Amino acid sequence: MTKGAETKATILEQAISMASVYGLEGLTIGQLAKETRMSKSGLFGHFGSKEALQFSVLDAVIKNFALLVMEPARKELTGNTQLEILFAKWTQWISIDQRAGGCLLIAASTELDDRPGELREYLAKQQIEWLDCIRRMAQKAVSQDSLKIGLDTRQFAFEFHSIGLSLNFSLRLLNDQKAPERAYTAFSKLMQNAKSQPTTITRYNN
Amino acid sequence: MTKGAETKATILEQAISMASVYGLEGLTIGQLAKETRMSKSGLFGHFGSKEALQFSVLDAVIKNFALLVMEPARKELTGNTQLEILFAKWTQWISIDQRAGGCLLIAASTELDDRPGELREYLAKQQIEWLDCIRRMAQKAVSQDSLKIGLDTRQFAFEFHSIGLSLNFSLRLLNDQKAPERAYTAFSKLMQNAKSQPTTITRYNN
Repeated sequence: MTKGAETKATILEQAISMASVYGLEGLTIGQLAKETRMSKSGLFGHFGSKEALQFSVLDAVIKNFALLVMEPARKELTGNTQLEILFAKWTQWISIDQRAGGCLLIAASTELDDRPGELREYLAKQQIEWLDCIRRMAQKAVSQDSLKIGLDTRQFAFEFHSIGLSLNFSLRLLNDQKAPERAYTAFSKLMQNAKSQPTTITRYNN
Repeated sequence: MTKGAETKATILEQAISMASVYGLEGLTIGQLAKETRMSKSGLFGHFGSKEALQFSVLDAVIKNFALLVMEPARKELTGNTQLEILFAKWTQWISIDQRAGGCLLIAASTELDDRPGELREYLAKQQIEWLDCIRRMAQKAVSQDSLKIGLDTRQFAFEFHSIGLSLNFSLRLLNDQKAPERAYTAFSKLMQNAKSQPTTITRYNN
């Protein structure tokens, strides 16, 4: 990595942390200059504009999410194990406090939902891919006879996703230390329900 | 209502709408002055400060939520019906687009979770009451033998709440028109699971 790229990476790290607390809109070049002890013009040199900085931050978080949450799960062979690893990595992502302010993607979802623009579109696209990742893993489990035939996998993804949102809420706003346990209980029930009907269909051969 | 109180109510209405789009932090006296075509000093006269305005907005939304979501459910006699009405009113609250930007309470939860202060504490207190309202209705249903004995009602509240968060997300960010149907399906499953074990205990009288 060149010196310039290294500096940019360090600034980006700080910017991600700021955005996780103050939101993407609250991420100002002025505030970032203070935190990184750089000049505003230096920061403009690296990112060009506030919009470009916001985009770089969102992009970095999205790539990180893919690397730390989705990719480890995709390496698994069965749909069921993929879902288990995906859930475990996601709860880690939400719970472990490396960032100052929790999951930026969840926070950005409510921050940007009413603000049309490139940033919102990019986030929505990624979140659709995320739900689709869950759905496809469930579909794989169905095809491997581990989850029941006829399972509504979009419904499954909706419910899987809801657990993480609730975990994030209970951990971050309420500081409820039992939230991870509750999230796991909810996930177990979801998996149990998805298995609970017979996976074989009686065939009548007349 | 006096003329002054009326004007204040109108401004508040506009402020709630603004905060639902731009967040409570994004609610500035300057922007509100533009939207209401009033002078900044006039607005300061009504609210005193940005912090007081934010607090008034949050307070108004919390009171409205109690009136439109919790109170109608509390009027029901059985725990099960209370839960059904509560869920119906909550999904209406999330779905019906009277405000410009959706449920302010959900948006404020991720906006304020990392920002210590009065506003955050007030919201957290209300959200704890909200979860407790769900829990007590479930507890009532248990005592009426409609939900199973031994049901973990805090877990129930966690899962009930998660469905609304997912509904809000899917409606607002993804514009998924099937989200209300998915939320109802998830709620039915939650209720079904909470009923699914026998509500009577075998007693051995030796």
